[in-house]
Amino acid sequence: MEEFDLTSMTWKEVEEALKTVQLAIIPIGAHEQHGPHMVESCDAVLAEKMAQKLGKRMFPYALITPTINMGVSQHHLNFPGTISLQPTTLIAILKDVISSLKHHGIEKFLLLNSHGGNQSTLNVASLMLTKDLDVEIYYAKTTASAKNAIKENVTSPLFGHSCEREVSEALYLAPELVRLENLEKGDIQEEGRWKQLRPGKAIQGFYYYEEMTKNGNIGDATKASWEIGQQIVEEALDNLSNELFKLLDLKVDVHQKI
Amino acid sequence: MEEFDLTSMTWKEVEEALKTVQLAIIPIGAHEQHGPHMVESCDAVLAEKMAQKLGKRMFPYALITPTINMGVSQHHLNFPGTISLQPTTLIAILKDVISSLKHHGIEKFLLLNSHGGNQSTLNVASLMLTKDLDVEIYYAKTTASAKNAIKENVTSPLFGHSCEREVSEALYLAPELVRLENLEKGDIQEEGRWKQLRPGKAIQGFYYYEEMTKNGNIGDATKASWEIGQQIVEEALDNLSNELFKLLDLKVDVHQKI
Amino acid sequence: MEEFDLTSMTWKEVEEALKTVQLAIIPIGAHEQHGPHMVESCDAVLAEKMAQKLGKRMFPYALITPTINMGVSQHHLNFPGTISLQPTTLIAILKDVISSLKHHGIEKFLLLNSHGGNQSTLNVASLMLTKDLDVEIYYAKTTASAKNAIKENVTSPLFGHSCEREVSEALYLAPELVRLENLEKGDIQEEGRWKQLRPGKAIQGFYYYEEMTKNGNIGDATKASWEIGQQIVEEALDNLSNELFKLLDLKVDVHQKI
Amino acid sequence: MEEFDLTSMTWKEVEEALKTVQLAIIPIGAHEQHGPHMVESCDAVLAEKMAQKLGKRMFPYALITPTINMGVSQHHLNFPGTISLQPTTLIAILKDVISSLKHHGIEKFLLLNSHGGNQSTLNVASLMLTKDLDVEIYYAKTTASAKNAIKENVTSPLFGHSCEREVSEALYLAPELVRLENLEKGDIQEEGRWKQLRPGKAIQGFYYYEEMTKNGNIGDATKASWEIGQQIVEEALDNLSNELFKLLDLKVDVHQKI
Amino acid sequence: MEEFDLTSMTWKEVEEALKTVQLAIIPIGAHEQHGPHMVESCDAVLAEKMAQKLGKRMFPYALITPTINMGVSQHHLNFPGTISLQPTTLIAILKDVISSLKHHGIEKFLLLNSHGGNQSTLNVASLMLTKDLDVEIYYAKTTASAKNAIKENVTSPLFGHSCEREVSEALYLAPELVRLENLEKGDIQEEGRWKQLRPGKAIQGFYYYEEMTKNGNIGDATKASWEIGQQIVEEALDNLSNELFKLLDLKVDVHQKI
Amino acid sequence: MEEFDLTSMTWKEVEEALKTVQLAIIPIGAHEQHGPHMVESCDAVLAEKMAQKLGKRMFPYALITPTINMGVSQHHLNFPGTISLQPTTLIAILKDVISSLKHHGIEKFLLLNSHGGNQSTLNVASLMLTKDLDVEIYYAKTTASAKNAIKENVTSPLFGHSCEREVSEALYLAPELVRLENLEKGDIQEEGRWKQLRPGKAIQGFYYYEEMTKNGNIGDATKASWEIGQQIVEEALDNLSNELFKLLDLKVDVHQKI
Repeated sequence: MEEFDLTSMTWKEVEEALKTVQLAIIPIGAHEQHGPHMVESCDAVLAEKMAQKLGKRMFPYALITPTINMGVSQHHLNFPGTISLQPTTLIAILKDVISSLKHHGIEKFLLLNSHGGNQSTLNVASLMLTKDLDVEIYYAKTTASAKNAIKENVTSPLFGHSCEREVSEALYLAPELVRLENLEKGDIQEEGRWKQLRPGKAIQGFYYYEEMTKNGNIGDATKASWEIGQQIVEEALDNLSNELFKLLDLKVDVHQKI
Repeated sequence: MEEFDLTSMTWKEVEEALKTVQLAIIPIGAHEQHGPHMVESCDAVLAEKMAQKLGKRMFPYALITPTINMGVSQHHLNFPGTISLQPTTLIAILKDVISSLKHHGIEKFLLLNSHGGNQSTLNVASLMLTKDLDVEIYYAKTTASAKNAIKENVTSPLFGHSCEREVSEALYLAPELVRLENLEKGDIQEEGRWKQLRPGKAIQGFYYYEEMTKNGNIGDATKASWEIGQQIVEEALDNLSNELFKLLDLKVDVHQKI
Repeated sequence: MEEFDLTSMTWKEVEEALKTVQLAIIPIGAHEQHGPHMVESCDAVLAEKMAQKLGKRMFPYALITPTINMGVSQHHLNFPGTISLQPTTLIAILKDVISSLKHHGIEKFLLLNSHGGNQSTLNVASLMLTKDLDVEIYYAKTTASAKNAIKENVTSPLFGHSCEREVSEALYLAPELVRLENLEKGDIQEEGRWKQLRPGKAIQGFYYYEEMTKNGNIGDATKASWEIGQQIVEEALDNLSNELFKLLDLKVDVHQKI
Repeated sequence: MEEFDLTSMTWKEVEEALKTVQLAIIPIGAHEQHGPHMVESCDAVLAEKMAQKLGKRMFPYALITPTINMGVSQHHLNFPGTISLQPTTLIAILKDVISSLKHHGIEKFLLLNSHGGNQSTLNVASLMLTKDLDVEIYYAKTTASAKNAIKENVTSPLFGHSCEREVSEALYLAPELVRLENLEKGDIQEEGRWKQLRPGKAIQGFYYYEEMTKNGNIGDATKASWEIGQQIVEEALDNLSNELFKLLDLKVDVHQKI
Repeated sequence: MEEFDLTSMTWKEVEEALKTVQLAIIPIGAHEQHGPHMVESCDAVLAEKMAQKLGKRMFPYALITPTINMGVSQHHLNFPGTISLQPTTLIAILKDVISSLKHHGIEKFLLLNSHGGNQSTLNVASLMLTKDLDVEIYYAKTTASAKNAIKENVTSPLFGHSCEREVSEALYLAPELVRLENLEKGDIQEEGRWKQLRPGKAIQGFYYYEEMTKNGNIGDATKASWEIGQQIVEEALDNLSNELFKLLDLKVDVHQKI
Repeated sequence: MEEFDLTSMTWKEVEEALKTVQLAIIPIGAHEQHGPHMVESCDAVLAEKMAQKLGKRMFPYALITPTINMGVSQHHLNFPGTISLQPTTLIAILKDVISSLKHHGIEKFLLLNSHGGNQSTLNVASLMLTKDLDVEIYYAKTTASAKNAIKENVTSPLFGHSCEREVSEALYLAPELVRLENLEKGDIQEEGRWKQLRPGKAIQGFYYYEEMTKNGNIGDATKASWEIGQQIVEEALDNLSNELFKLLDLKVDVHQKI
């Protein structure tokens, strides 16, 4: 076994794994439209793939839980097929998952999240559940820490949803998510509230995604490639595993491990 | 396309599919111990596989949603790795999924459930959400309706969890769930409350699964086979699709469809 | 005193009774239409009467709580006078009753339920409250275990609500519930979803009772009698008390007790 | 029929009654200790009896619902047998009862309450449910308006729980609630917080009933009589029915009705 | 320092104060219309001012928390500007404030409330939170205990909202709340439900304030004065501090303290 | 009147103001430790002052509501005096405030927040309440948009809580919040989880503030000044008012207005 993936283990194997495991990695995605060139399970699948790769690096100190395959996607709801959980529902799921695993002896958790729309809910969840369940809860965007690779490869001023970055990740991690024959640039709306409400602006606020883009994606997916995906994913995995080993305070040589 | 599986569709494909779709099939599983010879994602995977097969039969009238891959498994919680949702959490997830899909125009729902421990919660959910969301909600155990195949092939007096029936289904639908080298009969406890509390007894009540079986399964998994699985699964799919076509009140020749 | 009925005891008498009491019996009924020949409190009264009789048999080991005289009756709501509790409300009531009685030292509970529509909610309640309150919770339909008497006396293929079985029970336990001059067979609807959704069918689901019966009852109340009621009730009480004594693990001769 | 009591009506009788009914009377009691001389169902039974008498006076304009036979009794919980609902549970029950009856066409409600400990919760409920359900909600203590009869007959400076007033009401309405052989004055504690926290004091606050009285009652039950009960009950019924007829804005001669 | 006001203290000063503090005073107001001559923050400001004065008298045994500056004002909501909290929201705030302060070591609490519409909610809160948080909770209307001063100075038969009593209190405590040029008597409605539903009547119930008064106030504000305010406020502070010192069971000479 | 501040208006003045008002500004602060040199109401007061200044600029198109003077401060709870609301409580308050104001005709809202720890909760609130209440909800940190003034004046690598930026804002807006005689640099902990979990790091997570700083503040308060405060505040007000006027889509010359 090269990773502890709860979904493919028997209870006796889990019992054995718990002798070394200190951390549970909970993959969290979304089910939402990703423009004309990505299927709607994109975030769920990418979170799962990243969790598996990170689990390998953290072996035998981490185990991977089932993927939370829907998330907070209210802003995408007017595109057909999108399913959105209430933030309170996502927190309830996390409470149940974490308290079940605490029952098995795990006290540190990483919420590994591929969907920007979940981040605030995860912040709130980590605060509430740390207190309610007396555990340590961390959370991370799957590839946000790959700053060098992103800076080098992503050129669109507005990116982050079914763009060259995300499509590249998918080409590397799960190419079946991509409709190569349909790759499109985001069909950005000239005007609208969204321009005032993007991250970094003076004011934030809820807006619907179709206010910003007609085809549902942003950035330029036609520039995506397997190589860019590899660069981003591996840099992120380096960063995440380095930080996690520090947090676990392990007396191991991290680089030797990887 | 031979089925409408939301997880592998783009929003434009969903938009097209919604022209014929009348029903959403929501696969519901669990994440729980299944004895020494099945992995813990068993119920989630079986629900998903059954939903895909049922979706094919109901094409182009049904679509399949992402799988709810955890369920109500409190009674298995003392076996390592089991994760249990509170019944209220499962109902909250269903409320969000169903109201999202109602936003897209779907008004009939089948909760296709592979895990007995979810049934009462699904009954409560169907009652509450029918009223709150003004939709039609049906639910079914994935293979419970295959009464002939089960009667013919399942001989253990106590069966229903990682037994010859479930292992056979897995061998047919998802053999990677089974550890063929570990197949074991249930290691049933001689005495205990559980004997008084089984279905059909005068009194019911909550008990922990280890009160009934030491190794976590019941029945006799060593008698499982691909052929039994095929018989059970196909009989169940016949029954489910027949009933659904009647419920949809379609003016189509059901047998011709299949 | 031949029974410990909380509603007719002073606190000093309760204090004395608690020296032997190990179990609380909580009668749970409903307030809903019962066709033209039974009044709407039927289930509440029958649950109360059964609890009193069972309490006598379990004396001095059980006490009887006040009756929960409304239940989950959403499916009857279109018949005038029906009152329905949300499942969450019924669970909240049970949580309060059980935690109050636990404060007095009782740790085993039987939810004695006369109304089929409550069963799933009681299953969910027993699971949730066992965990939350750290007690043992059992539940039972009042007379469902009287299989012999029912098999012998009930001939309608579709029965269970204001039918020969229930009216017979009422004639024996509380004849004031019955309008003898109005006894009617169920006025069953020829067609409809209900036929597909009855217990044992491939698919279940919520439907309104008027989809199934125009006059609100099923079965054939004209065949009811005091004698049938006596047979059913006493067989059920035999079964329930036998099982409860086993669950209490009493070193007493059960039959001598009765 | 001289009253419309939902518990003893068939749905067809309710259907007929709804042609004139404008108001539902919901009796609300409690299940709590009442000292050595009254049984614990006292408040539930008195509320029910009062509702029946008031229903007769309001016939055919009012109907009586099933009695809510437990209430908010946290302050009595240290006396054996007391059961207390959370205020939120009582509000949930009322929401379900009122919304069910609104479904049947009733839009005015009287919460007829015999237990002081419920009053604040009923005030909160009337405010919340008026808004949520768009109905008119009134509430009243069963006999608090009988100011003349109380002034004339009740001499204890501290009364209101199993005292001469309440025992007298019971002797008139439901003598089976009273243990005549055990009548006792309240065994009042000399000192304690309770003296500072009674109604009318500068500060209020929660205290347990045993801080105030060792035997669980206050006042002087030995002075109770059927005649005092009759005086109090009938004066209260005069007041309540007069006020209700005004609220219903009926063009009927109230006194002729009674 | 003459008072411990949390809003104007650093954490080191709070740390020092906690060596003597036994009680937290939580001022609770409302944000609601007060007729043409008082601004809408009236209750919030008066509660805060009273808390500061009471805190001075209780120094160094009490500290004052931030003011809860909105309350339950559903009945005023049809007057422009009124903001109303749900009772459940107010209870949630109190739960958070009290549990935070219990974390700092305080176990006694006075909810000092200036707004009648909050009283029932505070009663419910004190009952629920006493149990949930294991603390002592008291509550008081700011000036209701000044019975002599009120009897002597308030002559309107219907008073209690922006009347001579409240305006006088404001003139003494916070004259900026009053529009002296607009002082008006309440413009009382001749007819209406309100007449039947006032405190002391046989029946209570929710009604909107405009059913009772067209200009939003009652009583006669033109009779208000600084002197009346002083008399009421100081009598109330005498009563409140006397009672609190008794509740704290301090071995100090109360009058010397003040 | 130069601003519409609900706390100092009568209902008639509000009625008049509502003729032009399109936006409500809701100031949101916190009650938490701010090191040895700022009092605990700091965030509440700064939010209120900023709202008043912004309200002046937006006059007569905006009104200012009462300040929410406590917030989500779980991470500061181990410093004496801190009070923390649950995120769900803050959302409940906002729901009540916004739905009350929607009742008065306002449909656009700015949550003007001075406390970083509230941001995620406000993001969640804006998403949930936009949907539930059908309004437009925006939120902003009070001075975060003053990027030039901050870049120019704030030199500490780690700042944002009782640092030179916040103390400067206070010196300009509310100098009474500052203990000039106690100004201290943050007493930063050399080691700890916090270093890995700051904004911009690969992983985020909940940690307690004392893990990062012994005296409770960060940055260097000794460098604060009135002038820096003025620069930051006025730049932020320029940005906020510019953005709001665009969002209101007013046909007015914004600069002339200010």
